Amino acid sequence: MTTYVHGYSSREARRLADQADVLAGLLHAGTAYPDGSRVLEAGCGVGAQTTHLAARSPGARIVSVDHSEESLALARARVHAPGVEWQRADLYELPFAGASFDHVFVCFVLEHLKEPAGVLAELRRVLRPGGSITVIEGDHGSAFFHPDSPHARAAVDCLVRLQAAGGGDGLIGRRLGPLLAGAGFEEVAVEPRTVWADAARPALAEGFTRETFTAAIEGVREEALAAGFATPDDFDRGVADLHRTAAGDGAFHYVFFKASARAGAEAGAGAGR
Amino acid sequence: MTTYVHGYSSREARRLADQADVLAGLLHAGTAYPDGSRVLEAGCGVGAQTTHLAARSPGARIVSVDHSEESLALARARVHAPGVEWQRADLYELPFAGASFDHVFVCFVLEHLKEPAGVLAELRRVLRPGGSITVIEGDHGSAFFHPDSPHARAAVDCLVRLQAAGGGDGLIGRRLGPLLAGAGFEEVAVEPRTVWADAARPALAEGFTRETFTAAIEGVREEALAAGFATPDDFDRGVADLHRTAAGDGAFHYVFFKASARAGAEAGAGAGR
Repeated sequence: MTTYVHGYSSREARRLADQADVLAGLLHAGTAYPDGSRVLEAGCGVGAQTTHLAARSPGARIVSVDHSEESLALARARVHAPGVEWQRADLYELPFAGASFDHVFVCFVLEHLKEPAGVLAELRRVLRPGGSITVIEGDHGSAFFHPDSPHARAAVDCLVRLQAAGGGDGLIGRRLGPLLAGAGFEEVAVEPRTVWADAARPALAEGFTRETFTAAIEGVREEALAAGFATPDDFDRGVADLHRTAAGDGAFHYVFFKASARAGAEAGAGAGR
Repeated sequence: MTTYVHGYSSREARRLADQADVLAGLLHAGTAYPDGSRVLEAGCGVGAQTTHLAARSPGARIVSVDHSEESLALARARVHAPGVEWQRADLYELPFAGASFDHVFVCFVLEHLKEPAGVLAELRRVLRPGGSITVIEGDHGSAFFHPDSPHARAAVDCLVRLQAAGGGDGLIGRRLGPLLAGAGFEEVAVEPRTVWADAARPALAEGFTRETFTAAIEGVREEALAAGFATPDDFDRGVADLHRTAAGDGAFHYVFFKASARAGAEAGAGAGR
Protein backbone atom coordinates (compact mmCIF):
# COMPACT_ATOMS: atom_id res chain seq x y z
CA MET A 1 0.00 0.00 0.00
CA THR A 2 1.08 3.52 -0.67
CA THR A 3 1.26 6.34 1.85
CA TYR A 4 0.34 9.82 0.73
CA VAL A 5 1.23 13.07 2.38
CA HIS A 6 -1.35 14.94 0.35
CA GLY A 7 -4.98 14.34 1.26
CA TYR A 8 -7.53 13.78 -1.47
CA SER A 9 -10.04 16.48 -0.70
CA SER A 10 -11.91 17.78 -3.73
CA ARG A 11 -9.94 21.04 -3.45
CA GLU A 12 -6.78 18.94 -3.64
CA ALA A 13 -8.16 17.08 -6.65
CA ARG A 14 -8.79 20.41 -8.35
CA ARG A 15 -5.27 21.60 -7.52
CA LEU A 16 -3.74 18.45 -8.97
CA ALA A 17 -5.80 18.90 -12.13
CA ASP A 18 -4.69 22.53 -12.51
CA GLN A 19 -1.10 21.48 -11.95
CA ALA A 20 -1.36 18.86 -14.68
CA ASP A 21 -2.71 21.37 -17.19
CA VAL A 22 0.05 23.89 -16.58
CA LEU A 23 2.76 21.30 -16.75
CA ALA A 24 1.35 18.94 -19.37
CA GLY A 25 3.41 20.33 -22.21
CA LEU A 26 6.62 20.13 -20.24
CA LEU A 27 6.06 16.65 -18.86
CA HIS A 28 4.28 14.80 -21.67
CA ALA A 29 6.33 16.06 -24.62
CA GLY A 30 7.84 13.02 -26.32
CA THR A 31 5.35 10.54 -24.88
CA ALA A 32 2.94 9.13 -27.47
CA TYR A 33 2.03 5.45 -27.86
CA PRO A 34 1.06 3.72 -31.13
CA ASP A 35 -2.51 2.76 -31.97
CA GLY A 36 -3.41 -0.56 -30.46
CA SER A 37 -0.49 -0.65 -28.02
CA ARG A 38 -1.25 -1.80 -24.50
CA VAL A 39 -0.36 0.91 -21.97
CA LEU A 40 -0.45 0.65 -18.18
CA GLU A 41 -0.68 3.88 -16.20
CA ALA A 42 0.46 2.81 -12.75
CA GLY A 43 -0.87 5.05 -9.97
CA CYS A 44 -3.31 7.27 -11.86
CA GLY A 45 -4.69 8.93 -8.73
CA VAL A 46 -7.54 11.27 -9.66
CA GLY A 47 -6.59 11.05 -13.34
CA ALA A 48 -4.67 14.31 -13.55
CA GLN A 49 -2.14 12.84 -16.00
CA THR A 50 -4.56 10.39 -17.62
CA THR A 51 -6.23 13.21 -19.52
CA HIS A 52 -3.00 14.16 -21.23
CA LEU A 53 -1.84 10.60 -21.70
CA ALA A 54 -5.06 9.68 -23.51
CA ALA A 55 -5.10 12.88 -25.58
CA ARG A 56 -1.59 12.20 -26.92
CA SER A 57 -2.20 8.50 -27.60
CA PRO A 58 -5.83 8.37 -28.77
CA GLY A 59 -5.47 4.92 -30.34
CA ALA A 60 -3.67 3.22 -27.46
CA ARG A 61 -5.43 0.83 -25.09
CA ILE A 62 -4.77 2.50 -21.75
CA VAL A 63 -5.40 0.78 -18.43
CA SER A 64 -5.13 3.24 -15.52
CA VAL A 65 -4.83 1.70 -12.09
CA ASP A 66 -4.71 3.05 -8.57
CA HIS A 67 -4.90 1.53 -5.10
CA SER A 68 -7.57 3.99 -3.99
CA GLU A 69 -11.22 3.42 -4.93
CA GLU A 70 -11.90 7.00 -3.84
CA SER A 71 -9.35 8.40 -6.27
CA LEU A 72 -10.66 6.19 -9.07
CA ALA A 73 -14.20 7.43 -8.44
CA LEU A 74 -13.00 11.04 -8.77
CA ALA A 75 -11.04 10.12 -11.89
CA ARG A 76 -14.04 8.43 -13.54
CA ALA A 77 -16.18 11.47 -12.72
CA ARG A 78 -13.88 14.17 -14.02
CA VAL A 79 -11.73 12.63 -16.78
CA HIS A 80 -13.34 12.38 -20.20
CA ALA A 81 -11.27 9.65 -21.83
CA PRO A 82 -13.58 7.02 -23.30
CA GLY A 83 -10.77 4.65 -24.26
CA VAL A 84 -9.35 4.40 -20.75
CA GLU A 85 -10.10 1.40 -18.58
CA TRP A 86 -10.00 2.23 -14.87
CA GLN A 87 -9.10 -0.50 -12.43
CA ARG A 88 -8.22 -0.85 -8.75
CA ALA A 89 -4.83 -2.46 -8.18
CA ASP A 90 -2.05 -2.75 -5.64
CA LEU A 91 1.10 -1.60 -7.39
CA TYR A 92 3.18 -4.10 -5.42
CA GLU A 93 1.05 -6.99 -6.66
CA LEU A 94 -0.59 -6.18 -9.97
CA PRO A 95 -3.56 -8.28 -11.16
CA PHE A 96 -1.99 -8.83 -14.58
CA ALA A 97 -0.11 -11.72 -16.16
CA GLY A 98 3.54 -11.24 -17.07
CA ALA A 99 4.25 -9.41 -20.33
CA SER A 100 0.71 -7.96 -20.45
CA PHE A 101 1.77 -4.47 -21.56
CA ASP A 102 3.84 -2.81 -24.26
CA HIS A 103 4.39 0.35 -22.24
CA VAL A 104 4.19 1.50 -18.64
CA PHE A 105 3.72 5.14 -17.57
CA VAL A 106 4.33 6.30 -13.98
CA CYS A 107 4.01 9.92 -12.92
CA PHE A 108 4.28 11.40 -9.39
CA VAL A 109 3.91 7.97 -7.78
CA LEU A 110 7.31 6.63 -6.72
CA GLU A 111 7.93 9.62 -4.43
CA HIS A 112 5.11 8.35 -2.20
CA LEU A 113 6.19 4.70 -2.02
CA LYS A 114 8.03 2.97 0.79
CA GLU A 115 9.58 0.51 -1.67
CA PRO A 116 9.79 2.06 -5.14
CA ALA A 117 12.27 -0.64 -6.18
CA GLY A 118 9.68 -3.34 -5.45
CA VAL A 119 7.06 -1.58 -7.55
CA LEU A 120 9.50 -1.10 -10.43
CA ALA A 121 10.32 -4.82 -10.38
CA GLU A 122 6.60 -5.60 -10.50
CA LEU A 123 6.12 -3.16 -13.40
CA ARG A 124 8.96 -4.86 -15.24
CA ARG A 125 7.20 -8.20 -14.76
CA VAL A 126 4.05 -7.03 -16.55
CA LEU A 127 6.04 -5.45 -19.43
CA ARG A 128 6.75 -7.51 -22.52
CA PRO A 129 10.44 -7.98 -23.38
CA GLY A 130 11.54 -4.80 -25.14
CA GLY A 131 8.61 -2.85 -23.73
CA SER A 132 9.19 0.68 -22.41
CA ILE A 133 8.73 2.35 -19.08
CA THR A 134 8.45 6.11 -18.59
CA VAL A 135 8.77 7.58 -15.11
CA ILE A 136 8.26 11.22 -14.15
CA GLU A 137 9.00 12.51 -10.65
CA GLY A 138 9.84 15.85 -9.08
CA ASP A 139 12.74 16.64 -6.76
CA HIS A 140 12.04 19.23 -4.09
CA GLY A 141 15.77 19.76 -3.58
CA SER A 142 15.79 21.40 -7.01
CA ALA A 143 13.68 24.30 -5.76
CA PHE A 144 15.51 27.61 -5.48
CA PHE A 145 14.24 31.11 -5.95
CA HIS A 146 14.67 34.85 -5.86
CA PRO A 147 14.45 36.49 -3.45
CA ASP A 148 16.21 33.72 -1.54
CA SER A 149 14.77 33.09 1.93
CA PRO A 150 15.86 30.74 4.71
CA HIS A 151 12.25 30.60 5.91
CA ALA A 152 11.04 29.51 2.49
CA ARG A 153 13.79 26.90 2.30
CA ALA A 154 12.81 25.61 5.73
CA ALA A 155 9.15 25.38 4.70
CA VAL A 156 10.09 23.34 1.63
CA ASP A 157 12.19 21.14 3.87
CA CYS A 158 9.09 20.47 6.01
CA LEU A 159 7.46 18.75 3.03
CA VAL A 160 10.59 16.72 2.34
CA ARG A 161 10.80 15.63 5.98
CA LEU A 162 7.10 14.73 6.11
CA GLN A 163 7.42 12.62 2.98
CA ALA A 164 10.48 10.90 4.47
CA ALA A 165 8.61 10.30 7.74
CA GLY A 166 5.85 8.67 5.72
CA GLY A 167 8.31 6.38 3.96
CA GLY A 168 8.45 8.40 0.75
CA ASP A 169 11.17 10.50 -0.85
CA GLY A 170 10.60 14.04 -2.08
CA LEU A 171 14.12 14.01 -3.53
CA ILE A 172 13.55 10.91 -5.66
CA GLY A 173 13.90 12.60 -9.05
CA ARG A 174 17.70 12.67 -8.98
CA ARG A 175 17.91 8.91 -8.41
CA LEU A 176 15.47 7.59 -11.02
CA GLY A 177 18.39 6.28 -13.09
CA PRO A 178 19.86 4.05 -10.38
CA LEU A 179 16.36 2.92 -9.35
CA LEU A 180 15.50 1.78 -12.88
CA ALA A 181 18.88 0.15 -13.46
CA GLY A 182 18.64 -1.57 -10.08
CA ALA A 183 15.23 -3.00 -11.00
CA GLY A 184 16.79 -4.62 -14.08
CA PHE A 185 15.70 -2.17 -16.75
CA GLU A 186 18.01 -1.49 -19.71
CA GLU A 187 18.77 1.55 -21.89
CA VAL A 188 18.08 3.86 -18.94
CA ALA A 189 17.97 7.55 -19.88
CA VAL A 190 17.10 10.42 -17.55
CA GLU A 191 16.51 14.02 -18.46
CA PRO A 192 15.75 17.05 -16.32
CA ARG A 193 12.69 19.02 -17.39
CA THR A 194 13.11 22.40 -15.80
CA VAL A 195 10.49 24.92 -14.74
CA TRP A 196 11.82 28.47 -14.69
CA ALA A 197 9.12 30.93 -13.71
CA ASP A 198 10.22 34.56 -13.70
CA ALA A 199 8.87 38.02 -14.51
CA ALA A 200 8.78 37.13 -18.21
CA ARG A 201 6.49 34.15 -17.50
CA PRO A 202 3.67 35.43 -15.28
CA ALA A 203 1.33 32.55 -16.17
CA LEU A 204 3.91 30.03 -14.98
CA ALA A 205 4.60 32.06 -11.84
CA GLU A 206 0.87 31.93 -11.11
CA GLY A 207 0.16 28.36 -12.27
CA PHE A 208 3.29 26.68 -11.01
CA THR A 209 5.03 28.76 -8.33
CA ARG A 210 1.84 29.77 -6.52
CA GLU A 211 -0.88 27.28 -7.40
CA THR A 212 1.22 24.16 -7.63
CA PHE A 213 4.40 24.31 -5.59
CA THR A 214 3.51 26.84 -2.89
CA ALA A 215 0.03 25.31 -2.60
CA ALA A 216 1.64 21.93 -1.94
CA ILE A 217 3.73 23.45 0.85
CA GLU A 218 0.70 25.23 2.32
CA GLY A 219 -1.16 21.92 2.16
CA VAL A 220 1.12 20.31 4.75
CA ARG A 221 0.99 23.20 7.24
CA GLU A 222 -0.94 21.35 9.94
CA GLU A 223 1.10 18.17 9.58
CA ALA A 224 4.36 20.13 9.72
CA LEU A 225 3.30 21.99 12.87
CA ALA A 226 2.01 18.79 14.49
CA ALA A 227 5.32 17.09 13.77
CA GLY A 228 7.19 19.99 15.35
CA PHE A 229 9.10 20.70 12.14
CA ALA A 230 8.29 24.43 12.28
CA THR A 231 6.63 27.08 14.41
CA PRO A 232 3.45 28.60 12.95
CA ASP A 233 5.15 31.98 12.48
CA ASP A 234 8.19 30.55 10.74
CA PHE A 235 6.12 28.31 8.47
CA ASP A 236 3.76 31.12 7.51
CA ARG A 237 6.66 33.42 6.79
CA GLY A 238 8.18 30.72 4.59
CA VAL A 239 4.94 30.42 2.64
CA ALA A 240 4.69 34.20 2.29
CA ASP A 241 8.27 34.30 1.02
CA LEU A 242 7.44 31.59 -1.54
CA HIS A 243 4.51 33.68 -2.78
CA ARG A 244 6.87 36.64 -3.01
CA THR A 245 8.99 34.72 -5.56
CA ALA A 246 5.98 34.69 -7.91
CA ALA A 247 5.55 38.47 -7.79
CA GLY A 248 7.33 41.40 -9.38
CA ASP A 249 10.96 40.61 -10.06
CA GLY A 250 10.82 37.21 -8.33
CA ALA A 251 11.88 33.93 -9.91
CA PHE A 252 11.40 30.24 -9.16
CA HIS A 253 13.33 27.17 -10.34
CA TYR A 254 12.22 23.54 -10.13
CA VAL A 255 13.18 20.32 -11.89
CA PHE A 256 11.05 17.37 -12.86
CA PHE A 257 12.96 14.31 -14.01
CA LYS A 258 11.67 12.21 -16.89
CA ALA A 259 13.24 8.79 -17.21
CA SER A 260 12.78 6.11 -19.81
CA ALA A 261 14.06 2.55 -20.01
CA ARG A 262 13.35 -0.80 -21.62
CA ALA A 263 12.56 -4.23 -20.26
CA GLY A 264 15.24 -6.68 -21.39
CA ALA A 265 14.79 -10.11 -22.94
CA GLU A 266 13.91 -11.82 -19.68
CA ALA A 267 11.20 -9.31 -18.70
CA GLY A 268 7.72 -10.72 -18.28
CA ALA A 269 9.25 -13.84 -16.74
CA GLY A 270 7.15 -15.35 -14.00
CA ALA A 271 4.19 -14.74 -16.28
CA GLY A 272 0.81 -16.33 -15.69
CA ARG A 273 0.68 -16.01 -11.91
CA MET B 1 38.28 46.73 -8.86
CA THR B 2 37.10 43.18 -8.74
CA THR B 3 37.78 40.63 -6.04
CA TYR B 4 38.35 37.02 -7.04
CA VAL B 5 38.10 33.99 -4.81
CA HIS B 6 39.94 31.85 -7.34
CA GLY B 7 43.67 32.52 -7.69
CA TYR B 8 45.19 32.72 -11.13
CA SER B 9 47.86 30.06 -10.90
CA SER B 10 48.71 28.37 -14.19
CA ARG B 11 46.98 25.22 -12.93
CA GLU B 12 43.91 27.33 -12.35
CA ALA B 13 44.23 28.82 -15.82
CA ARG B 14 44.34 25.30 -17.25
CA ARG B 15 41.29 24.29 -15.22
CA LEU B 16 39.34 27.30 -16.45
CA ALA B 17 40.29 26.46 -20.03
CA ASP B 18 39.17 22.83 -19.64
CA GLN B 19 35.92 24.00 -18.10
CA ALA B 20 35.27 26.30 -21.02
CA ASP B 21 35.78 23.50 -23.56
CA VAL B 22 33.40 21.11 -21.83
CA LEU B 23 30.73 23.71 -21.42
CA ALA B 24 31.20 25.73 -24.59
CA GLY B 25 28.37 24.09 -26.48
CA LEU B 26 25.94 24.56 -23.63
CA LEU B 27 26.85 28.16 -22.87
CA HIS B 28 27.61 29.65 -26.28
CA ALA B 29 24.75 28.12 -28.27
CA GLY B 30 22.73 30.98 -29.72
CA THR B 31 25.50 33.57 -29.42
CA ALA B 32 26.95 34.64 -32.79
CA TYR B 33 27.60 38.24 -33.83
CA PRO B 34 27.46 39.59 -37.40
CA ASP B 35 30.55 40.40 -39.42
CA GLY B 36 31.83 43.84 -38.65
CA SER B 37 29.82 44.25 -35.46
CA ARG B 38 31.66 45.77 -32.50
CA VAL B 39 31.66 43.36 -29.53
CA LEU B 40 32.94 44.02 -26.02
CA GLU B 41 33.84 41.02 -23.88
CA ALA B 42 33.83 42.47 -20.38
CA GLY B 43 36.03 40.54 -17.94
CA CYS B 44 37.78 38.07 -20.25
CA GLY B 45 40.12 36.73 -17.57
CA VAL B 46 42.56 34.26 -19.10
CA GLY B 47 40.50 34.11 -22.28
CA ALA B 48 38.66 30.87 -21.52
CA GLN B 49 35.47 32.11 -23.20
CA THR B 50 37.19 34.34 -25.74
CA THR B 51 38.24 31.29 -27.77
CA HIS B 52 34.65 30.22 -28.24
CA LEU B 53 33.33 33.73 -28.69
CA ALA B 54 35.79 34.39 -31.53
CA ALA B 55 35.23 30.98 -33.14
CA ARG B 56 31.48 31.57 -33.35
CA SER B 57 31.76 35.16 -34.59
CA PRO B 58 34.83 35.12 -36.85
CA GLY B 59 33.93 38.38 -38.60
CA ALA B 60 33.09 40.41 -35.50
CA ARG B 61 35.47 43.01 -34.08
CA ILE B 62 35.95 41.72 -30.55
CA VAL B 63 37.56 43.78 -27.80
CA SER B 64 38.27 41.65 -24.72
CA VAL B 65 39.06 43.56 -21.55
CA ASP B 66 40.07 42.59 -18.04
CA HIS B 67 41.34 44.48 -15.02
CA SER B 68 44.27 42.12 -14.53
CA GLU B 69 47.42 42.51 -16.65
CA GLU B 70 48.47 39.06 -15.46
CA SER B 71 45.30 37.43 -16.78
CA LEU B 72 45.62 39.31 -20.06
CA ALA B 73 49.20 38.08 -20.48
CA LEU B 74 48.02 34.50 -20.01
CA ALA B 75 45.16 35.11 -22.42
CA ARG B 76 47.44 36.54 -25.11
CA ALA B 77 49.79 33.58 -24.71
CA ARG B 78 47.23 30.80 -24.91
CA VAL B 79 44.31 32.07 -26.98
CA HIS B 80 44.74 31.94 -30.73
CA ALA B 81 42.21 34.49 -31.90
CA PRO B 82 43.89 36.93 -34.31
CA GLY B 83 40.87 39.21 -34.58
CA VAL B 84 40.63 39.87 -30.86
CA GLU B 85 41.98 43.08 -29.38
CA TRP B 86 43.07 42.65 -25.76
CA GLN B 87 42.94 45.64 -23.47
CA ARG B 88 43.28 46.39 -19.76
CA ALA B 89 40.22 48.11 -18.34
CA ASP B 90 38.38 48.72 -15.09
CA LEU B 91 34.85 47.43 -15.60
CA TYR B 92 33.48 50.17 -13.37
CA GLU B 93 35.05 52.87 -15.51
CA LEU B 94 35.55 51.68 -19.06
CA PRO B 95 37.94 53.59 -21.34
CA PHE B 96 35.36 53.81 -24.13
CA ALA B 97 33.04 56.54 -25.34
CA GLY B 98 29.29 56.02 -24.99
CA ALA B 99 27.62 53.86 -27.66
CA SER B 100 30.98 52.35 -28.72
CA PHE B 101 29.68 48.79 -29.06
CA ASP B 102 26.88 46.88 -30.78
CA HIS B 103 27.06 43.96 -28.35
CA VAL B 104 28.41 43.20 -24.90
CA PHE B 105 29.26 39.70 -23.64
CA VAL B 106 29.85 38.95 -19.94
CA CYS B 107 30.55 35.44 -18.65
CA PHE B 108 31.43 34.37 -15.09
CA VAL B 109 32.23 37.94 -14.06
CA LEU B 110 29.32 39.45 -12.13
CA GLU B 111 29.51 36.73 -9.46
CA HIS B 112 32.87 38.19 -8.38
CA LEU B 113 31.85 41.84 -8.26
CA LYS B 114 30.96 43.91 -5.22
CA GLU B 115 28.67 46.10 -7.32
CA PRO B 116 27.40 44.20 -10.35
CA ALA B 117 24.67 46.81 -10.84
CA GLY B 118 27.29 49.52 -11.26
CA VAL B 119 29.15 47.51 -13.89
CA LEU B 120 25.93 46.76 -15.77
CA ALA B 121 25.10 50.48 -15.84
CA GLU B 122 28.58 51.17 -17.23
CA LEU B 123 28.15 48.43 -19.85
CA ARG B 124 24.84 49.97 -20.87
CA ARG B 125 26.60 53.32 -21.33
CA VAL B 126 29.05 51.90 -23.89
CA LEU B 127 26.28 50.06 -25.81
CA ARG B 128 24.60 51.79 -28.71
CA PRO B 129 20.80 52.22 -28.43
CA GLY B 130 19.26 48.89 -29.40
CA GLY B 131 22.53 47.05 -28.78
CA SER B 132 22.45 43.71 -26.97
CA ILE B 133 23.99 42.40 -23.79
CA THR B 134 24.47 38.71 -23.00
CA VAL B 135 25.31 37.64 -19.47
CA ILE B 136 26.16 34.10 -18.33
CA GLU B 137 26.58 33.21 -14.66
CA GLY B 138 26.35 30.08 -12.54
CA ASP B 139 24.34 29.59 -9.37
CA HIS B 140 25.89 27.30 -6.78
CA GLY B 141 22.52 26.90 -5.07
CA SER B 142 21.46 24.90 -8.12
CA ALA B 143 23.91 22.11 -7.29
CA PHE B 144 22.32 18.88 -6.09
CA PHE B 145 23.44 15.33 -6.55
CA HIS B 146 23.11 11.63 -5.93
CA PRO B 147 24.13 10.26 -3.54
CA ASP B 148 23.01 13.24 -1.50
CA SER B 149 25.46 14.23 1.25
CA PRO B 150 25.24 16.87 3.97
CA HIS B 151 29.06 17.10 3.94
CA ALA B 152 29.11 17.79 0.21
CA ARG B 153 26.39 20.42 0.62
CA ALA B 154 28.38 22.05 3.41
CA ALA B 155 31.53 22.09 1.25
CA VAL B 156 29.62 23.80 -1.57
CA ASP B 157 28.31 26.26 0.97
CA CYS B 158 31.90 27.11 1.93
CA LEU B 159 32.49 28.45 -1.59
CA VAL B 160 29.26 30.46 -1.46
CA ARG B 161 30.20 31.94 1.92
CA LEU B 162 33.74 32.79 0.77
CA GLN B 163 32.39 34.55 -2.30
CA ALA B 164 29.94 36.47 -0.12
CA ALA B 165 32.74 37.39 2.31
CA GLY B 166 34.70 38.75 -0.65
CA GLY B 167 31.75 40.85 -1.74
CA GLY B 168 30.65 38.52 -4.52
CA ASP B 169 27.59 36.31 -4.95
CA GLY B 170 27.80 32.63 -5.91
CA LEU B 171 24.00 32.57 -6.18
CA ILE B 172 23.82 35.42 -8.68
CA GLY B 173 22.45 33.37 -11.59
CA ARG B 174 18.88 33.39 -10.33
CA ARG B 175 18.79 37.18 -10.13
CA LEU B 176 20.24 38.18 -13.49
CA GLY B 177 16.80 39.29 -14.67
CA PRO B 178 16.21 41.83 -11.88
CA LEU B 179 19.84 43.00 -12.15
CA LEU B 180 19.52 43.75 -15.87
CA ALA B 181 16.11 45.37 -15.52
CA GLY B 182 17.38 47.42 -12.61
CA ALA B 183 20.28 48.69 -14.70
CA GLY B 184 17.80 50.01 -17.27
CA PHE B 185 18.02 47.27 -19.89
CA GLU B 186 14.92 46.31 -21.87
CA GLU B 187 13.56 43.05 -23.36
CA VAL B 188 15.19 41.08 -20.54
CA ALA B 189 15.07 37.30 -21.07
CA VAL B 190 16.68 34.69 -18.83
CA GLU B 191 17.02 30.99 -19.49
CA PRO B 192 18.47 28.20 -17.38
CA ARG B 193 21.09 26.08 -19.14
CA THR B 194 21.23 22.91 -17.14
CA VAL B 195 24.10 20.47 -16.70
CA TRP B 196 22.92 16.97 -15.84
CA ALA B 197 25.83 14.57 -15.50
CA ASP B 198 24.86 10.99 -14.75
CA ALA B 199 25.96 7.44 -15.59
CA ALA B 200 24.84 7.92 -19.18
CA ARG B 201 27.18 10.93 -19.58
CA PRO B 202 30.57 9.84 -18.23
CA ALA B 203 32.47 12.58 -20.12
CA LEU B 204 30.35 15.25 -18.45
CA ALA B 205 30.73 13.58 -15.04
CA GLU B 206 34.50 13.73 -15.55
CA GLY B 207 34.75 17.12 -17.26
CA PHE B 208 32.15 18.99 -15.27
CA THR B 209 31.38 17.24 -11.96
CA ARG B 210 35.00 16.38 -11.17
CA GLU B 211 37.25 18.71 -13.12
CA THR B 212 35.12 21.82 -13.02
CA PHE B 213 32.77 21.95 -10.06
CA THR B 214 34.50 19.71 -7.53
CA ALA B 215 37.86 21.21 -8.52
CA ALA B 216 36.49 24.66 -7.76
CA ILE B 217 35.43 23.49 -4.30
CA GLU B 218 38.79 21.82 -3.68
CA GLY B 219 40.43 25.06 -4.77
CA VAL B 220 39.08 26.99 -1.79
CA ARG B 221 40.04 24.38 0.83
CA GLU B 222 42.69 26.49 2.56
CA GLU B 223 40.58 29.63 2.51
CA ALA B 224 37.57 27.76 3.90
CA LEU B 225 39.61 26.25 6.72
CA ALA B 226 41.29 29.57 7.49
CA ALA B 227 37.88 31.24 7.66
CA GLY B 228 36.67 28.58 10.07
CA PHE B 229 33.85 27.54 7.73
CA ALA B 230 34.73 23.85 8.03
CA THR B 231 37.02 21.40 9.79
CA PRO B 232 39.61 19.67 7.58
CA ASP B 233 37.90 16.30 8.03
CA ASP B 234 34.44 17.58 7.20
CA PHE B 235 35.65 19.53 4.18
CA ASP B 236 37.62 16.60 2.82
CA ARG B 237 34.68 14.28 3.31
CA GLY B 238 32.51 16.75 1.42
CA VAL B 239 34.96 16.79 -1.48
CA ALA B 240 35.15 12.98 -1.47
CA ASP B 241 31.36 12.82 -1.53
CA LEU B 242 31.28 15.20 -4.50
CA HIS B 243 33.71 12.95 -6.36
CA ARG B 244 31.44 10.02 -5.53
CA THR B 245 28.60 11.68 -7.45
CA ALA B 246 30.71 11.41 -10.63
CA ALA B 247 31.22 7.66 -10.24
CA GLY B 248 29.08 4.60 -10.87
CA ASP B 249 25.40 5.40 -10.45
CA GLY B 250 26.03 8.95 -9.23
CA ALA B 251 24.47 12.06 -10.72
CA PHE B 252 25.09 15.80 -10.58
CA HIS B 253 22.83 18.75 -11.41
CA TYR B 254 23.90 22.37 -11.96
CA VAL B 255 22.36 25.40 -13.65
CA PHE B 256 24.02 28.19 -15.57
CA PHE B 257 21.80 31.14 -16.39
CA LYS B 258 22.08 32.88 -19.73
CA ALA B 259 20.42 36.28 -19.90
CA SER B 260 19.99 38.65 -22.79
CA ALA B 261 18.65 42.19 -22.97
CA ARG B 262 18.76 45.33 -25.06
CA ALA B 263 19.86 48.86 -24.40
CA GLY B 264 16.92 51.22 -24.88
CA ALA B 265 16.79 54.44 -26.86
CA GLU B 266 18.61 56.49 -24.26
CA ALA B 267 21.54 54.06 -23.90
CA GLY B 268 24.96 55.43 -24.74
CA ALA B 269 23.92 58.71 -23.15
CA GLY B 270 26.73 60.46 -21.39
CA ALA B 271 28.84 59.57 -24.41
CA GLY B 272 32.18 61.20 -25.05
CA ARG B 273 33.48 61.29 -21.50
